[in-house]
Amino acid sequence: MARPVISLLTDFGARDPSAGVLHGVILGIAPDAAIVDISHEVHKYAIRDGALLLWCALPYLPVGAHVAVVDPGVGTARRPIAIRAARGDMLIGPDNGLLPGAVERLGGATAAWILEAGEFRMPVVSSSFHGRDIFAPAAAHVANGVDPARLGPEIDPASLVPTPIRGPVIESGWLLTSIVYVDTFGNVKLGATRGELEEAVGLLRPGDALRLRLGTGSETRDVPWRGTFGEGGIGDLLVYEDSYGRVCLAQNQGNAARSLSLDDDDPIEVRRP
Amino acid sequence: MARPVISLLTDFGARDPSAGVLHGVILGIAPDAAIVDISHEVHKYAIRDGALLLWCALPYLPVGAHVAVVDPGVGTARRPIAIRAARGDMLIGPDNGLLPGAVERLGGATAAWILEAGEFRMPVVSSSFHGRDIFAPAAAHVANGVDPARLGPEIDPASLVPTPIRGPVIESGWLLTSIVYVDTFGNVKLGATRGELEEAVGLLRPGDALRLRLGTGSETRDVPWRGTFGEGGIGDLLVYEDSYGRVCLAQNQGNAARSLSLDDDDPIEVRRP
Amino acid sequence: MARPVISLLTDFGARDPSAGVLHGVILGIAPDAAIVDISHEVHKYAIRDGALLLWCALPYLPVGAHVAVVDPGVGTARRPIAIRAARGDMLIGPDNGLLPGAVERLGGATAAWILEAGEFRMPVVSSSFHGRDIFAPAAAHVANGVDPARLGPEIDPASLVPTPIRGPVIESGWLLTSIVYVDTFGNVKLGATRGELEEAVGLLRPGDALRLRLGTGSETRDVPWRGTFGEGGIGDLLVYEDSYGRVCLAQNQGNAARSLSLDDDDPIEVRRP
Repeated sequence: MARPVISLLTDFGARDPSAGVLHGVILGIAPDAAIVDISHEVHKYAIRDGALLLWCALPYLPVGAHVAVVDPGVGTARRPIAIRAARGDMLIGPDNGLLPGAVERLGGATAAWILEAGEFRMPVVSSSFHGRDIFAPAAAHVANGVDPARLGPEIDPASLVPTPIRGPVIESGWLLTSIVYVDTFGNVKLGATRGELEEAVGLLRPGDALRLRLGTGSETRDVPWRGTFGEGGIGDLLVYEDSYGRVCLAQNQGNAARSLSLDDDDPIEVRRP
Repeated sequence: MARPVISLLTDFGARDPSAGVLHGVILGIAPDAAIVDISHEVHKYAIRDGALLLWCALPYLPVGAHVAVVDPGVGTARRPIAIRAARGDMLIGPDNGLLPGAVERLGGATAAWILEAGEFRMPVVSSSFHGRDIFAPAAAHVANGVDPARLGPEIDPASLVPTPIRGPVIESGWLLTSIVYVDTFGNVKLGATRGELEEAVGLLRPGDALRLRLGTGSETRDVPWRGTFGEGGIGDLLVYEDSYGRVCLAQNQGNAARSLSLDDDDPIEVRRP
Repeated sequence: MARPVISLLTDFGARDPSAGVLHGVILGIAPDAAIVDISHEVHKYAIRDGALLLWCALPYLPVGAHVAVVDPGVGTARRPIAIRAARGDMLIGPDNGLLPGAVERLGGATAAWILEAGEFRMPVVSSSFHGRDIFAPAAAHVANGVDPARLGPEIDPASLVPTPIRGPVIESGWLLTSIVYVDTFGNVKLGATRGELEEAVGLLRPGDALRLRLGTGSETRDVPWRGTFGEGGIGDLLVYEDSYGRVCLAQNQGNAARSLSLDDDDPIEVRRP
């Protein structure tokens, strides 16, 4: 039998021992698990940021149990949940919008449960570390084959807090969106897929010019649509479809976010010149 | 037979290849080991810092071999050691105070050895990377079932350099301690457990006010004891029992260390108003 | 049968989900693989930097498939390649100089192939993430025992882009080199081995003085050759043979790069006073 896969996505940071503790708790319950760290550097308390990284990563991971913890409401009434996706995965974390975007990428939710059963939690549940005390144990037990119906009461997936990732506004001729992620290369990911951009401005071919309004000012900038970074010169700006299908503004071997002073949530409007 | 668990805690940093090299050395000797990275971002040369992270993490890891390397004295006469804890774990690293705090959390030391046997070291031992050349090989061999008595001469655990984690001064009515760790959320961990604080100021109930003197000035600040972050408003300060049992000063969805300009080793006095 | 070992070295950074995605892709193809992260913090686009970390790490890893991705030319005509080393390893990545230095450390190249076969790539290959779409799948298939001849056409290893790690200039009495790596402790690694330095200045004994010209100025500084950090006082500068055999300038329990304002590629000349 293949080793079960359990992935982790948190805002715990690499310095704190918290991520290692999740590994330890999981291995104590499911010793054969292959654990994948998607990222522990989600911006602190930033649910949208974590939701987007999960959206990117999960389609490329094997079917498994996926723990995600960005949890400003830990210790309050927000529900600890498990969602089963059509692909067969189980997503586990707080009911605060973190999980549903990725669930959609895996075919949508087929069922959901509240993680209430003490049997599948740590013996003592702290008020501030549900990753260790509730979510990681639940994932490990599910990876061991525990029927999720034993984790707690089933709930309607429609009752879950929805994803904070908003789609773009699309009108004939232009698309209005915002920055959803600046990666560590300074590539600026927009809240729109290539398909959504083409719905607005028509089919795109390499070299087509796009007029961008960045931020709230009236200034615009024309940047070519490219198939690859290397089509332009070093330092040139480009708009391209990133490897996850998103529209992305980048600078060939440079840092677009720094060059253009762009950051998360800045509005961006795209049209043809 | 379950895979042996080997954990790693170092100040090597994520950029240098050193942590990956430890994984490689271990897998070369114990190919089935499950390796857990507790943290490689211990402050450079900061034994107390590493000792505290180890103290936090190990109780949540399975019984295993635990390598810890924060080693300003590498290449000098400080002894390379293995300590067996009552829970069954073997802690491996330099004899400089890094290990004994965590050993106590695992039931105390039942035996200790100096890592001298060339058979369980790398063929060539460098003067500056004992993690690779002495500690990781020893852990992997122990994980494979090698009798620790073969690693080198047994020593009295009482002869080990003691932990640098100091307990608080407790007087009836007040507790004097200091900051032992600022986590990546800016939560400020004190050198005292909840039990020790209650020994000083009596049983604590959510909402009880505590008067803190932060640093060396005479200014004080009243902060409520809370059961969870969410009992106060966003941005409110609170004192609570963190998920490891320590007294912790935090700010709900904020960064207490930054807001209050606090750092490692700052003294903190706690009493009731 | 032992688990296959697959290592990863990239400039993806710890925050982006890319490294986790590589783990996911590999486990989807080779579920039993033991994956070692050498580093994901190579300086962005810095081939020499990545080549050096790989050179350091691979000799200490078990024989396996090693994926390295520092790839400013992704999406251009640079070839995706696999190189078989005499030790039995397969090194996989872009043909841009990243791999050959480490291949030499593993006994030299015995064969090489271009990764062209669609069967061993992801079904859709993006223009910007060949780590996910070409390199990680190739490594996982090789780890599963796929004959590398099936990955694509064989090429002459002599046709590969050579390593950007340059050796020193050695004259009788002096050695001219540059800084190839500043580690996270601030230790300054030179582009020369101890053997090369001794070829220039003769056999070195602990305490021997070396005269260093740092950078392009005319100022020099005498620093002792040491066998270990601890031979001098805290804060003292020393030159020593690091744990990988390189000549290294360091400061006992300090940060030599910061103290001396040194950085990658600064020239350094060494002679006896």
